Amino acid sequence: MSQPSTETPRWVYSFGGGRADGDASMKDLLGGKGANLAEMCALSLPVPPGFTITTAMCAAYYANGRTFPAGLTAEVDAALEHVGKTVGATFGGLDVPLLVSVRSGARASMPGMMDTILNLGLNDATVEALALRSGDRRFAYDSYRRFISMYSDVVLGVDHGVFDDVLDNHKNLSGQMLDTDLGPEDWLDVIDGYKEAVTSMTGQPFPQDTRDQLWGAIGAVFGSWQNERAISYRRMYDIPDSWGTAVTVQAMVFGNRGETSATGVAFTRNPSTGERAIYGEFLVNAQGEDVVAGTRTPQALTEAARLAGGETAPSLEALMPQTFAELSTIFSKLETHYSDMQDIEFTIQEGKLWMLQTRAGKRTAKAALKIAVDLVAEGALKPADALLRLDASSLDQLLHPTVDPKAHKVLITQGLPASPGAASGEIVFDSREAKARKAAGHSVILVRTETSPEDIEGMAAAAGILTARGGMTSHAAVVARGMGRPCVCGAGALRIDAKAGVITVQGREFKRGDIITIDGATGEVIEGKVRMREPELSGDFGTVMAWADQHRRLGIRANADTPRDAKAARDFGAEGIGLCRTEHMFFEKDRILAMREMICADDVTGRQRALAKILPMQRADFVKLFELMPGLPVTIRLLDPPLHEFLPHEAEELEAVAKELGVPLAKLKTRVSELHEVNPMLGFRGCRLALRYPEITEMQARAIFEAAVAAATSSGKAVVAEVMIPLVAYRAEFDRLAAIIRNVAASVETETGAKLSYTIGTMIELPRAALKADEIASGEDGAEFFSFGTNDLTQTCLGLSRDDAAPILANYVEQKIFETDPFVSIDQDGVGELVALGVERGRRVRPDLKIGICGEHGGDPASIEFFHRSGLDYVSCSPFRVPVARLAAAQAALRGKAPRSEA
Amino acid sequence: MSQPSTETPRWVYSFGGGRADGDASMKDLLGGKGANLAEMCALSLPVPPGFTITTAMCAAYYANGRTFPAGLTAEVDAALEHVGKTVGATFGGLDVPLLVSVRSGARASMPGMMDTILNLGLNDATVEALALRSGDRRFAYDSYRRFISMYSDVVLGVDHGVFDDVLDNHKNLSGQMLDTDLGPEDWLDVIDGYKEAVTSMTGQPFPQDTRDQLWGAIGAVFGSWQNERAISYRRMYDIPDSWGTAVTVQAMVFGNRGETSATGVAFTRNPSTGERAIYGEFLVNAQGEDVVAGTRTPQALTEAARLAGGETAPSLEALMPQTFAELSTIFSKLETHYSDMQDIEFTIQEGKLWMLQTRAGKRTAKAALKIAVDLVAEGALKPADALLRLDASSLDQLLHPTVDPKAHKVLITQGLPASPGAASGEIVFDSREAKARKAAGHSVILVRTETSPEDIEGMAAAAGILTARGGMTSHAAVVARGMGRPCVCGAGALRIDAKAGVITVQGREFKRGDIITIDGATGEVIEGKVRMREPELSGDFGTVMAWADQHRRLGIRANADTPRDAKAARDFGAEGIGLCRTEHMFFEKDRILAMREMICADDVTGRQRALAKILPMQRADFVKLFELMPGLPVTIRLLDPPLHEFLPHEAEELEAVAKELGVPLAKLKTRVSELHEVNPMLGFRGCRLALRYPEITEMQARAIFEAAVAAATSSGKAVVAEVMIPLVAYRAEFDRLAAIIRNVAASVETETGAKLSYTIGTMIELPRAALKADEIASGEDGAEFFSFGTNDLTQTCLGLSRDDAAPILANYVEQKIFETDPFVSIDQDGVGELVALGVERGRRVRPDLKIGICGEHGGDPASIEFFHRSGLDYVSCSPFRVPVARLAAAQAALRGKAPRSEA
Repeated sequence: MSQPSTETPRWVYSFGGGRADGDASMKDLLGGKGANLAEMCALSLPVPPGFTITTAMCAAYYANGRTFPAGLTAEVDAALEHVGKTVGATFGGLDVPLLVSVRSGARASMPGMMDTILNLGLNDATVEALALRSGDRRFAYDSYRRFISMYSDVVLGVDHGVFDDVLDNHKNLSGQMLDTDLGPEDWLDVIDGYKEAVTSMTGQPFPQDTRDQLWGAIGAVFGSWQNERAISYRRMYDIPDSWGTAVTVQAMVFGNRGETSATGVAFTRNPSTGERAIYGEFLVNAQGEDVVAGTRTPQALTEAARLAGGETAPSLEALMPQTFAELSTIFSKLETHYSDMQDIEFTIQEGKLWMLQTRAGKRTAKAALKIAVDLVAEGALKPADALLRLDASSLDQLLHPTVDPKAHKVLITQGLPASPGAASGEIVFDSREAKARKAAGHSVILVRTETSPEDIEGMAAAAGILTARGGMTSHAAVVARGMGRPCVCGAGALRIDAKAGVITVQGREFKRGDIITIDGATGEVIEGKVRMREPELSGDFGTVMAWADQHRRLGIRANADTPRDAKAARDFGAEGIGLCRTEHMFFEKDRILAMREMICADDVTGRQRALAKILPMQRADFVKLFELMPGLPVTIRLLDPPLHEFLPHEAEELEAVAKELGVPLAKLKTRVSELHEVNPMLGFRGCRLALRYPEITEMQARAIFEAAVAAATSSGKAVVAEVMIPLVAYRAEFDRLAAIIRNVAASVETETGAKLSYTIGTMIELPRAALKADEIASGEDGAEFFSFGTNDLTQTCLGLSRDDAAPILANYVEQKIFETDPFVSIDQDGVGELVALGVERGRRVRPDLKIGICGEHGGDPASIEFFHRSGLDYVSCSPFRVPVARLAAAQAALRGKAPRSEA
Repeated sequence: MSQPSTETPRWVYSFGGGRADGDASMKDLLGGKGANLAEMCALSLPVPPGFTITTAMCAAYYANGRTFPAGLTAEVDAALEHVGKTVGATFGGLDVPLLVSVRSGARASMPGMMDTILNLGLNDATVEALALRSGDRRFAYDSYRRFISMYSDVVLGVDHGVFDDVLDNHKNLSGQMLDTDLGPEDWLDVIDGYKEAVTSMTGQPFPQDTRDQLWGAIGAVFGSWQNERAISYRRMYDIPDSWGTAVTVQAMVFGNRGETSATGVAFTRNPSTGERAIYGEFLVNAQGEDVVAGTRTPQALTEAARLAGGETAPSLEALMPQTFAELSTIFSKLETHYSDMQDIEFTIQEGKLWMLQTRAGKRTAKAALKIAVDLVAEGALKPADALLRLDASSLDQLLHPTVDPKAHKVLITQGLPASPGAASGEIVFDSREAKARKAAGHSVILVRTETSPEDIEGMAAAAGILTARGGMTSHAAVVARGMGRPCVCGAGALRIDAKAGVITVQGREFKRGDIITIDGATGEVIEGKVRMREPELSGDFGTVMAWADQHRRLGIRANADTPRDAKAARDFGAEGIGLCRTEHMFFEKDRILAMREMICADDVTGRQRALAKILPMQRADFVKLFELMPGLPVTIRLLDPPLHEFLPHEAEELEAVAKELGVPLAKLKTRVSELHEVNPMLGFRGCRLALRYPEITEMQARAIFEAAVAAATSSGKAVVAEVMIPLVAYRAEFDRLAAIIRNVAASVETETGAKLSYTIGTMIELPRAALKADEIASGEDGAEFFSFGTNDLTQTCLGLSRDDAAPILANYVEQKIFETDPFVSIDQDGVGELVALGVERGRRVRPDLKIGICGEHGGDPASIEFFHRSGLDYVSCSPFRVPVARLAAAQAALRGKAPRSEA
């Protein structure tokens, strides 16, 4: 066996025959399958020998225009010879022919996405040798015809149906029903039919050279990395293209060698509930594909499962007790070795057990928690390691109703999965309807082209929200997540005619009052009412959260504007409020009138008169928030949105409002037109408003500080008020407003005799603010805390409006310009550099600067890991994302301690 | 005389008596006046002795809550004693009393902005000593009453009118008409009246302690740094608050000691024309304030000027030939010493000449050029130094008609000075009107709330443009500057009712057809037609431009979209086109129809059909541009604006367009609504369009390359085409489009057999692009050039929409949050850091990366200096700014060579 020279990269890693070149830690290079086969070899488990061509070859293959580099052939030949020697067979040999399987294996498990070929090495000659050696012609011919159809399908691109037709035709002619009824001569006929079909479809005879077969198969596996299913799977699970797949070539073992042979799959624990019990199924006299294909009904592995399922076919435990015992022992060994629940494939060939695959088993969120907690209880795992095994994002499943996966669904269209959970209800088109139908006891889905702050009450009344426009961080998405309401947004196929009360979607119509279901976890919009599963939080959830809290360094706060949000946030374990958007308080009925009065006032006196009406209401809100967060920080952001958001725009509404305010209609119209902006996101908002109308800041500061005094008295606990100035780009902006806030605080202290404890800080949400963070934080009077507003920072850094981004993002994801939506997971390269700069420069001048983030990224695990690495003090997210954030923060801390692995 | 200790800063610098502590280089510390007085002393010119309290004291004074630090008193006392010794007098002394003047002196000349006090040191006792010593009671009492009124006005805040009343009253009672008629006893009476007035107005008698007088005056000078006039002057001329003013205390000399005394001001050359001739005026028996006050008519200095002015009063040359000769000699000496035209103040006391001030004289742009060229011709100055003396911005005056400064004007309102030059014409409200009236031979001013691309033709037809909304880089401003049209924008007081044909502004109405004048250099909107001065370019202009070209390192290109622009650019000396905005070509009548057809097409075939109609037109445009720029680079930016800019929005227009296109109205409306965006600036534009509709890029690339082949053939010169991709944030965006462009180029080469020379680059106009400049430029296929789009980069870095910025900027400038409008002069701290990062990162991976800037900042001298320092290769500005840019680039290069001075 020739050794590859040390100068060229090594492309091939062998395993089996008592040795293995690789191990489980080499998933990046060998793929999950190859690495775990090597690992099982090293554990002395019965693994058929084979070798793995590395993922690096996949990249080289594509870089070379889908050809293989020189040198690979020699390595593969040597490895193949080694396999042959181990099992005493020869590839293409006419004495004892070696048959192999060729499988893909990427770094991450991609079930169903890649193609597999079995029985490779058979041709018209070797099949006879196999028949002779095995003494089982039927088996040999059956294997050959399986190989022809599989190879032709995967490598030669011949549709599978062609072979089904040949087989059905033979059965019809011969009057046989089942595959097992067919004898050797039948299969020989079928093989002839298959070969003819290949020749007629491809213009070439089926390849008889086994080496051609092998290289064709290897090429097909690498080629399948770029097939559509694989690409869309990767897109869905954020797997980079660059990873590539490995190819594992392995000596075949046969579960179809008669009644003492079988093949099966198993989970070492129940993947749905997490219960500790072997869970799986097998088929006698079959190959792996038969289990998956579903043409025969598989049998249960254990007696317990058979009884529970009310099945009559015997379990493996009953049928082959010795082999089952051996299998059980191996399961335990593997679970202990990997300290995790395993998903296993095995084959029994004439009574002998062979292990074909092991990997961490996929599981539901609920099962994941139970398994983690049980493994720790069993001493198999430390809590820290258990935490790292969990998928933080999946916790969301546990907090919301979900569509029953078994339910029948008729899809209407699909939008973006903007806020998790599912909901059914009647279609309504505006807030008034939503509230009225809700009040009448109906569940409603609010359907809007896009939502605006005026829709808040309707969104609160609705069971779910559906919009035609807007991305993952559009107004609808952000508010819905904050409220814990399911939301599908950006469903671009919807044409909404609210006046007529009709939605048109691809030629179909849905009317006001029709029932629909939305699934905010998938983005699906479904006809009628669909069966749901209610959320349930087990004790395991609490246990895992407690572990997470022990390991995380990041604080976790919630974005909460109302006492209801704040309550939910506390229930989910938030340690304070990281963002209270005061403007949401202004949209309620009686307040918006005062707000409008202020906007239309002619002078400061008029504005102050209107603000005086809002003051007691704001104060009362803040008192409640402070009382719900005793001793915990509450960050209150001063008024942020452009004023025109508070004014009506439709002609009718304008008239009504003018009457209500007692101002001439013309004047109101003029004001609306004065406040109109071309790009409101970059306009008269944030601190720019406050600098023009400082009386707003005076009122808000007064409401905050008077509330702080009142809440401290009523709760007997300290109030930790953090006053946050939005949209700062210049130090001078901060200074002017901070001075006003300090003055009000001093007045309130004098008036009440209380001593206030508060800090003043700023959002960092503009590139200039991040660049000038040192200037903004420096000195005694500088900002005492930063909160990165990564939504706006993303909008400005990328020059991309989140309200308008949906069609652009769709095209970019399609074209792979983004790996992920930058509004969902922070753009670490671009926006992230601004965050890092802001942290570094801010802390340089103020080492104890408290720094958090309150954009939507605060609930995204990948972003949270980035924020942890960037040295932030806390993240703030919507209340329902708090558990996700707690776990993700712990994982980030744990990963930060260990040298970074592929994680 | 005690020396201040070396530990404390030195606050006081003395001059006179044959020595000076300071010199002309110390303007920052001593102010212009103090530094030049010291310098004149060193030149042995006759300067009354005195001392200067530094500008550093001004800062300390404000930092200390308007009080003086310990130690200053001792320094002032010592300096005062030194002055007294030099002139043989004592401050407050009853034998020979020392009188002093107290004047302000900032680093930059701020004429009329600060307050001056003369004759300080007089009180009821010292005035008698002065009378006795001078032998001139009338002079002594006159001086005292002047001092009382001036001091009371400036220091005590007593209105000047009070003293005028006292004087008028005395004249009426005594029957005298002229000040010169009054005798000593009259003045004594007046003094009593003045003192009574002070007591009654302030409740305190006029201060008799000369030391109290001095400190009151010093405090008043420092205090005047923050008076309203000074603040608004600084705002107008961008002088930082932090500079502060110095105070100069100087022994008095008297031009009012009879017929052998006089006082005067002079320029060493004519400040209006630049002609080499003494220019100035004087008054016999008067103090400086009399010349300024205008109560007496001053006389000409030279006989030539007297004759030219047809004046009868004798010239100084005739009246005091010897003193005039001495003065002439001093003028020459000072001009030679400073190598610049000087603005001088002098006093003749009883035949003896005293120099009170010299400084570089203010002059018109035309005079500045002539003086610079003459001084070089005279050998007094090198061209490089002459260039540094010029104010680059003022060149604009030479290229446009200007309002005659002597013309009578009735102001309507004021907006932003968006594009220089003045224009008069009839009010029109839209493009159609504008074109029709223009065609009928009328001059029109196009008045719009804001302009959009649809207004282009109307803007071209108008003599000037006036808008109610939008900042210095709004659409109107940018387009107007590009066209060389005068423009006033953001005149917020205008209420425009285009339908009714009426503008309302603060209660007044102007109708369609009324004549108005706009002054784009000041922002003024004026009633009726105002007298203008036509522009004239002298040979001096050419000489200075030639010098500038020898010294600058930066290349100067122009932003030009049409052959007319390109022609103007070449005439002004542009070395290529730095930005050709192809979309401007799409708005012409026949093209916009094809464009709309493309936008409404259902599929790629439909779009290609429409684009095929545009191709020959675009190609023809490019041929003309290339022919006008033989051998010079032409940077063509691919389609940038959002598509909805090409569609109509008004109901009537929509109907018309639907008919024209032959599409159903409903479909057109749907398309308009689909393309509607909340923040179009951050939306579906730039490369995002091209990535969605690559056929647009294909068409544009084809038009460019086919035109390049045609122009190279017709002109016989090489075509240097630079294809620029807008709004790139990700390398992948660049790659996809660059690949399309290269493919088209290869096709055109194959089709024509020509060899194309072109490069592909990108705008850097988003923060992410600047941060990822290395990624975007790296490798063989990376961007070959960068052009910073600092308009958009400013918008995104600051989060400020230029179309919406006007009211925000107005408030910020008012509140001094900005020192200058960041859309006019680049925000060097914030946006500038992104530019610097982009340059550094881009050049790191591609050392020969060509880097320019094509935002509006390309024509701003301060920004140009920044771009020079940042290592850019060129700036590109509107054609009419090219001369400004050439000069500013030369100045930047010259300043970059010398150690940086206060410049």
